[in-house]
Order: sequence, then C-alpha cells, then structure tokens
Amino acid sequence: MKVVVDAFGGDNAPVEIVEGALMALEKNKELEVILCGDESKIKEILNGRIERIEIVNASEVISNSDHPTEAIRKKKDSSLVRAFDVLKEREDVIGLVSAGSTGAVLAGAIMKIGRIKGISRPALAPILPTKKDNDVIIIDSGANVDCKPINLLHFALMGSAYYSIVYNIENPRVALLNNGSEEGKGNELAKEVYPILQKAPINFIGNKEGGDFMSGDVDVMVADGFAGNALLKGTEGAVGAVVSILKKSIKSHFWSKIGAIFMSKTLRELKNRIDILKKHGGSPLLGCKKLVVKNHGSCKRLNIASSINQTILLHEKELNKKIEQALSNISAGDEVE
Amino acid sequence: MKVVVDAFGGDNAPVEIVEGALMALEKNKELEVILCGDESKIKEILNGRIERIEIVNASEVISNSDHPTEAIRKKKDSSLVRAFDVLKEREDVIGLVSAGSTGAVLAGAIMKIGRIKGISRPALAPILPTKKDNDVIIIDSGANVDCKPINLLHFALMGSAYYSIVYNIENPRVALLNNGSEEGKGNELAKEVYPILQKAPINFIGNKEGGDFMSGDVDVMVADGFAGNALLKGTEGAVGAVVSILKKSIKSHFWSKIGAIFMSKTLRELKNRIDILKKHGGSPLLGCKKLVVKNHGSCKRLNIASSINQTILLHEKELNKKIEQALSNISAGDEVE
Repeated sequence: MKVVVDAFGGDNAPVEIVEGALMALEKNKELEVILCGDESKIKEILNGRIERIEIVNASEVISNSDHPTEAIRKKKDSSLVRAFDVLKEREDVIGLVSAGSTGAVLAGAIMKIGRIKGISRPALAPILPTKKDNDVIIIDSGANVDCKPINLLHFALMGSAYYSIVYNIENPRVALLNNGSEEGKGNELAKEVYPILQKAPINFIGNKEGGDFMSGDVDVMVADGFAGNALLKGTEGAVGAVVSILKKSIKSHFWSKIGAIFMSKTLRELKNRIDILKKHGGSPLLGCKKLVVKNHGSCKRLNIASSINQTILLHEKELNKKIEQALSNISAGDEVE
Repeated sequence: MKVVVDAFGGDNAPVEIVEGALMALEKNKELEVILCGDESKIKEILNGRIERIEIVNASEVISNSDHPTEAIRKKKDSSLVRAFDVLKEREDVIGLVSAGSTGAVLAGAIMKIGRIKGISRPALAPILPTKKDNDVIIIDSGANVDCKPINLLHFALMGSAYYSIVYNIENPRVALLNNGSEEGKGNELAKEVYPILQKAPINFIGNKEGGDFMSGDVDVMVADGFAGNALLKGTEGAVGAVVSILKKSIKSHFWSKIGAIFMSKTLRELKNRIDILKKHGGSPLLGCKKLVVKNHGSCKRLNIASSINQTILLHEKELNKKIEQALSNISAGDEVE
C-alpha cells in the first residue's frame, strides 16, 4: 500500500510532514511512503530511518502566493507537482497527501489526475465536531465558489458516500445549507437544487441553517463553496474565539487559575473534541480519479499521520466505486444542469 | 421621544416585550412607548403601570409560518401591521421595535415605510462579540439572499455609518467576506464588488475570511445575505456548541464541578461577552426611511429595553442623515449596477 506525500507543503514543512509519515509507517507495517521534496533535507530529518520510504527529489516549492494553475504548469520540479506525477504514473500508489496551497492542490488534482467520470466538480469536505457525539462534514468548503445545481447534487452524493465510509453509517443525514429551514427558502441556487436533492438517492433531510451545523442533527451539510467556506471558517473562528476569551479570563483571575486546575479533565476533553482533525486527518478532495487528501496549512505530524491512515481507509472501502455507484443511481431521465 | 413596539412579536410575547418596554421607560424619563396588540392582555401585564404608555389595539398576530408580504397585506389588524401604521402615520414616532418574523418585519418596512432614497435594499446588521474588546457587525445577515454589487456597496456605506455611531469611531474597518484574503479571490459577486468598495468613501481593509469575523480585526463585515447568514448563524451555533460541550463535561466530572465554582468569575465573564445582544438590543434594519429594529425571536425583556434605547441613540445621532451623506459622497461618475 503506497501513499505519496508532498513533504514541502504547509507551514510546518518539512519536519512535521516527514515525522507524520514516520508515525503512519510505525503504525501500519503494510504501508510504504514516497516523500517528495529536497532529498538532502528529507534525509537529514529521517536521520537513518529509511525503512519503507522512498524519496523523489524536487527542487522547488509552491507557496500560497503562487497562482495555482500557473504553479502546477510551471513549477514542474516542485514537491507538489512531483507528488502528482507519482500519483498519476504509478498504479500502485493509492493516494496523495499534501498540506500545501489549497488552490494548487485543487488545480493539480484536476489537471494531473482528473475527475471521476460524471462528476462535474471535485469538492473539499472537512470534518467538524458537533455538540453531540457525532461529527459533521461540509461539502463544498471552498473549492468551487460559483456553483450550479448539478455541482451541489454531486457534492451531496459524494459527501454521503464519504461520510458513510468514515463513520460506517448506512444513510447519513444530508442537509442543504440555507437561511431558513422551511421549503422554498434560500437564494436562487438553493431553491433550484432543493427538489433535485429530494429526488437524489440520499437521505435528504431538507434545509438547515448555519446554526444547525454543530447541532449534531446533520451529518453532511451541502453548500456552494463560498457560503460553505464562510460557515466552515466562521465556525472554526468562533470556536477559537470562545477558547481565547476563556483562556484570557482564566489568566486574569487568581481563583479561576485554581479552578482551571480542578477542571483540567474538562478542559482536556474540550480540547480533544475541538481538535477533531487530529483524529481524522485532513479534508479529502472528493471526486478525483485517485485519492487526494488536503491538510490544513498549519497541521502537525499527527494530522499527517491521520491523513495517510484516512487515505488507506478510503481506498480499502472503495470510496470512488461508491461515488460511481451513486452517480449511476441518478435516474437517466433526471437531467440537471 | 416616542417608540412603537410590536407587543405580540416573538416567542416570549407579550410578557417579555411589555416588561422590556417598562424597563426602558424606567430608565429614560423622556421616553413614551406605544404598545400594539391585544389591549386587554397588555393591560393585564401592565397591571396599572400606565405612565407614558399608549396602547393601540390589534386582534391578530403574524407568525413565522405566515408568508411575509401576504401577512402584511392581509393581516391588517395584526400587532406588527398596526405598529407599522403608527410609525408611518405619526411624525413624532421615531422608530419601531419588533421581535416578530424577520421576513414580515422586512416586508412591512419596505411596503409601509419605504427605503431611503438611493438605497437599493435595506439590510440587517447584527452585532457580535470578538475575542478582543471590540465588537463586529455583519451586513447583510439574511434580508437579501441574491445580491448585486450595488447592494453590497450600500451595505458597506450603511454598516460603516451605523458602527461609527454605536461605537463612536470615526472610520470603522470595513471588510468584504471572502474565501481568501488575497485580492482577486472570491465568487463573481465578490470579485466585482472589490474594486467598487476600494473607491467607496469608507475605510475598506480588503477581503477577510469567515475565520477573521471574531478576530477583532474587522468592525464591519460586508456580505450577501446568504453567505452572511451562514457566517452569522454558524458563529452563533459554534459559540453555543462550545458552551454546551463545556457544560456537559463539567456536569460529568466531580472535580470539574468544584473547579467551576472557583471559576465562577470567568464563566460569568464568558457569558456576558457572548450575550452581547443583551447590551445592544436587536439588529437594526438599515436603509429604511424610519428606524426599524428587529429582535431575535427568543429575546427577553432586557433585549427589548436595549433595542428601544438603541432606537433613541440612532435617532439622536441622525443615522439616516449620515447614510444619506455617505450616498451623496459616491462620486456621480461611479455608476454601479
């Protein structure tokens, strides 16, 4: 089982990326990892730990300030492009993990790997915690900012298949992000796609508002990438803001500091629940011919290890085959644009 | 100074609404309040406290399940329509406060009161806390789900004027909600409006992501009502979810319960920071010829009292005149559609 890793993508590259790969290798003895990037630097970090590791040298790095498609075209010797080349050319490589520029990962996936036949647009589907024990995904979260109904239909099918694999649930609850829960609510796009989702082979539970996102009552939230991104980032920002207000207040009151010691178990539980991506790794780019998992730029080794494990899980459970099946279940007469 | 109040709008009407009006009257001896709704029920709650109160009887109530524009047209004897009639017909009434259906308040404001000349669409601009000491507003937060660049330009002008009055700040920082901070990012609408906002007579600080909303680095976040609603509701939901996870964990661990006692000051501070709307009241519907303030459906007396105070402040500081001035500052050559 081989996974290719962009060792120079992300704020904490290459150390955290390489260490993350080593963590995944430690846990899974069947795994082999191909690391792309500056060979001498990677070797320095590996420090002799070379078992089941292959290095593909790359002299360049794509940064967030590079224009995505141009970077993929021109920086041919970058760690990300080399990684995509490996994924494309080698049949035994099952997936790619990168914490690099989202735009470049997206552009690379489309240009180098291509979409699953019938899928209009690949989409990002990150996982977030809810206030109950289940988690929620949002699809799309920013890969496609101007969407048509057919894109949202595909997001719903892909999100449902993905959630059902990750959580081993038969019919995850799929909702449409809207500004009200009643039928007939929404902007033009939401109004158009609502009846299409009703007929789709998914467990569609109707419109849900941004406020329902962390309620635990939704498994898969479907949205255009612009509103989805606002919801995702707003949620992450709000969680961070509350924690920040809490920390600041604890620091400024003597008795609160004492209280925090007694409450250590609760504060740890809160942290673990919030840091859910550590468990699940990054966000897969659903809809590509081969598995591509994008990590947050600020991710650490544990995230990278989780992303590699996630790639293996999605491969073993045949995510792409499930997406193709879902596509074929849309009755031929139901043409959507 | 007269304010008209829809005494039968909201989940906790009429008791909390009437009590809220009484709180405001207690605090401001210049204030007079006109309460619209079932006279006998209002009198029962007032229980003889009638100083500076006038009642306008109304036999009907508009609910969330009513179609907004139809309800305004047909339920002529509803508490909300009567309140709009009072606002429209009486020159000495400076504003209206309601916690009823958002759609109906919006429809009533447009149909009965009308827009400020030159404003394309009125918009809702609720206030939220940030992790610093300042607050932030989002405009629009759901009144207009399909927007054009000119709408967002007007939201920016109105939001800036409003924030500058409420916080007594000369040039609040106005940002465009986007899925990335770089120029050139965004969906078609965001890309089109960016250069227009750059030329507008506001302190435009560029694109900001949903994650920046509670950072304290933005004063006025401008968005179409669909994405803005996702951001607003997502933020509120996330804050609530973190508090809920925290509470659940405290309850389930003995030592955490003890810790919570020591931390009472911090937990109270957190609660006060989050419950910011108690201080500021509801969300004004900016851009109408007269002041209309919309409260959350679940609001209590303190929110109503704050909204009445807010209405007075916005009147005294001549919000609408400031909006008109901002409009006239857009150079005549810059035509936007």
